[in-house]
Amino acid sequence: MEITCPVSFTDFDRVLLGHGSGGKLSRRLIDTIFYPAFKNEWLEQNHDGCVFPMNAGKLACSTDSFVVDPIFFPGGNIGDLAVNGTVNDLACCGADPMFLTVGFILEEGLPLSDLQKIVYAMKIAAEKADVRIIAGDTKVVAHGQCDKLFINTSGIGAVPPDVCISPSKAEPGDVVICSGNIGVHGITILSTRESLGFETTLESDTASLNKMTSKLVKTITDVHVLRDPTRGGVGTTLNEIAEASKVKIELDEARLPVPDAVRAASEILGLDPLYIANEGILLVILPEKHAGEAVALLQQFSEGRQTCVIGRVLEPGGASVSMKTIYGNHRIVTMLTGEQLPRIC
Amino acid sequence: MEITCPVSFTDFDRVLLGHGSGGKLSRRLIDTIFYPAFKNEWLEQNHDGCVFPMNAGKLACSTDSFVVDPIFFPGGNIGDLAVNGTVNDLACCGADPMFLTVGFILEEGLPLSDLQKIVYAMKIAAEKADVRIIAGDTKVVAHGQCDKLFINTSGIGAVPPDVCISPSKAEPGDVVICSGNIGVHGITILSTRESLGFETTLESDTASLNKMTSKLVKTITDVHVLRDPTRGGVGTTLNEIAEASKVKIELDEARLPVPDAVRAASEILGLDPLYIANEGILLVILPEKHAGEAVALLQQFSEGRQTCVIGRVLEPGGASVSMKTIYGNHRIVTMLTGEQLPRIC
Repeated sequence: MEITCPVSFTDFDRVLLGHGSGGKLSRRLIDTIFYPAFKNEWLEQNHDGCVFPMNAGKLACSTDSFVVDPIFFPGGNIGDLAVNGTVNDLACCGADPMFLTVGFILEEGLPLSDLQKIVYAMKIAAEKADVRIIAGDTKVVAHGQCDKLFINTSGIGAVPPDVCISPSKAEPGDVVICSGNIGVHGITILSTRESLGFETTLESDTASLNKMTSKLVKTITDVHVLRDPTRGGVGTTLNEIAEASKVKIELDEARLPVPDAVRAASEILGLDPLYIANEGILLVILPEKHAGEAVALLQQFSEGRQTCVIGRVLEPGGASVSMKTIYGNHRIVTMLTGEQLPRIC
Repeated sequence: MEITCPVSFTDFDRVLLGHGSGGKLSRRLIDTIFYPAFKNEWLEQNHDGCVFPMNAGKLACSTDSFVVDPIFFPGGNIGDLAVNGTVNDLACCGADPMFLTVGFILEEGLPLSDLQKIVYAMKIAAEKADVRIIAGDTKVVAHGQCDKLFINTSGIGAVPPDVCISPSKAEPGDVVICSGNIGVHGITILSTRESLGFETTLESDTASLNKMTSKLVKTITDVHVLRDPTRGGVGTTLNEIAEASKVKIELDEARLPVPDAVRAASEILGLDPLYIANEGILLVILPEKHAGEAVALLQQFSEGRQTCVIGRVLEPGGASVSMKTIYGNHRIVTMLTGEQLPRIC
C-alpha cells in the first residue's frame, strides 16, 4: 500500500545531532513532525510520561524494536511495521491494544523528509488499529553509529475478563489455523536487498491483526493460543508453542498456504518457507469443534481471506513439531538454527 | 558504585547475528543472560507480551532509548542508566513505577560478558527501584550498523488518586527545589571521552528517585511540578516548565549546587553547568509554605542530601527563566541551542 504523506522538507533538511539534545532543535522536531502526526489529548500533557485513567482488569504489555533494512520496502516502511508489530503482540495476548509509546534512534544525516514519511505511516497504522501514541523519545547518534533509524514501540492493551490466551494452552485435539499466506514479508524484504539480485512482485503483508483477534476471542471463548509468526517463521513459533504446552504438533504440508512467488524465491535462495518471517498473519490454536466457525470468522476480514487449517495438536509429551509432506512421509520441523535473514523486522 | 557481576562467558563469546533470529540462539541468549537476571512470574509467561492484573485508577507510562557512549562509565553503565531513566520519568509523573519492558539492539561482535554485566546492572537497579522487568525484545544488527548496544526501556506506574503533577502547574509564589548537585553525570561521561583529554574523580549520579518522589507526593499533597533535568540540563527543563505554566522563573546563582569538579571542567570546556545533563537529581516546584518541609524530607534520602531551594516562580506571563548572578545582576537563561554533549544518555 502506497502512502502519500504531506512532505514539508527538502533534501537538504537532515537530522542533526542537536535534534537529540533535549533543547530547541528537539522541540522543533516534535513540533514539525511528531505532534502534527500523533497529536492527541494524552500526548499534549507534554510531560516526561503520560498519565491516563484505566479501569480495573487484566492489562497486556509488550515491547519490540525495529531495525528493518531497507527502511522503505514494497507494502510498507519501518514506521507502519513498528506500529503493527506491537499491536499484533498485544492482540496475540488476547488484548485490545490501546496505547503505544515510540522511541526513535536516528542517525545524524537522515533526511527529515524520510522521517516525516515514516512518522506519517505510523499515524495511519495507529488510526487503522485504533491505538493512540501517547509518549515518545528521540535520540540522535553520529553518522555511522546506527543505520538510518531504529524504532522501538511498546504498548498497553486491555484483556477482556474471560479471555485467557497462552502459548502453554495448546491441547491434544486442537487444530492449528493460519490466517494467511506464509513467507510474504521475509521474501519481500529479501527482494529489496540489491546483492541478492532477484525481483518479485510481492508486497509485505504488514497489517494490524487486532480487529480479527478481538472478534475471534469475543465470539469463541476457548481460543487456546494466538501467535503472529514473525522472526523465526511458522516453524519456530510452533516449536515454541509445542515446548510451552508440552505437546506434539503435526503440520500438513499440502495445506500450507505458500504463494508461488514465495515458493519460487525460497527455492532459488535455498530457504524453507516455514522459517521465513511474516508480519500480517496469525496462528490460532483451538479445539477442533470450533475450527469451522473460526475459519469462517477470520475469512470475513481482508487480512484473513486465506485462512485455513494447517495442522493439529497430537498427544502430549515430546514437545515437537512434525510435518506430513506432500509425498505422504513425515519430517521433523525444528526451531530455526542460525540466522536466515538479518534485519527482517 | 562498582557492581560485581557473575560472568559466565569468555572474551571469545560474542553476539552473533543469529542471537537476533528468533530461533535457537535467541532462546539461548534469553536462557543464559536475560532470564537468570530478570526472572519473575510475569516474565515466565513466555509470550509475545505479558498479561497482569491492575486496579482501577490513574496509570503513567513513559519510554526512553539509551545510547550513552561509553557504555561503561564511572558510577554505572548503560544498563542501570536505562532502568533509572524510565523509573525517574514515571516518578516525575507522581507515579509509583511498577513494570518495565526492555528492548535491546545489539551490535554483532559485542562481548557477551559485557552484555551480561549490563543486564546484571539492570537487575540490581530494578531491585533498588522495586520494579519488575516483564517483557523484552532483542534485535541484532551487523557489525558497524550500531555502536555496541542501545537499550529502550518503557514503563508503567500507578499514580495515587490525589496526586496531580504536571509541568503546567507552576504558580507564582512557588519555589524551585533541586535535590542534588548539578552537572555530575554529563561531566563524568565527557571525562571518559579520550579525545577530550581531561580527567575527573566524578562518578555519574545515576540513581532511581522514585522512593523520594513517592514519599514527597504522599506527604505534601500540593506538589505542583516534578522533573528530572536530564538532557538539556536544569536550564532547558526550567524553560519547558516556564513555557508550559506560562510563568517567569528566577534562579539564584549563589544557591546553585555546582560541585567544584563540575565547575572546573565546565570552565575548561566552555560549558554552562545549567545545560549539562543530570541523571540522579530532581527539580521540585511547590508553594513556598511547603519549602522547608520538602527540603527536610528530601534530605533524609542519600540521593537528596544536597537538596536546597535554587529559585522561585515569579509573576505569570512571559514564560522565561532568568538568573540572579553572584554579582547581583540578572541574565536570561534560554533553552539549550544546538548539541553540547551527544550520546550523554
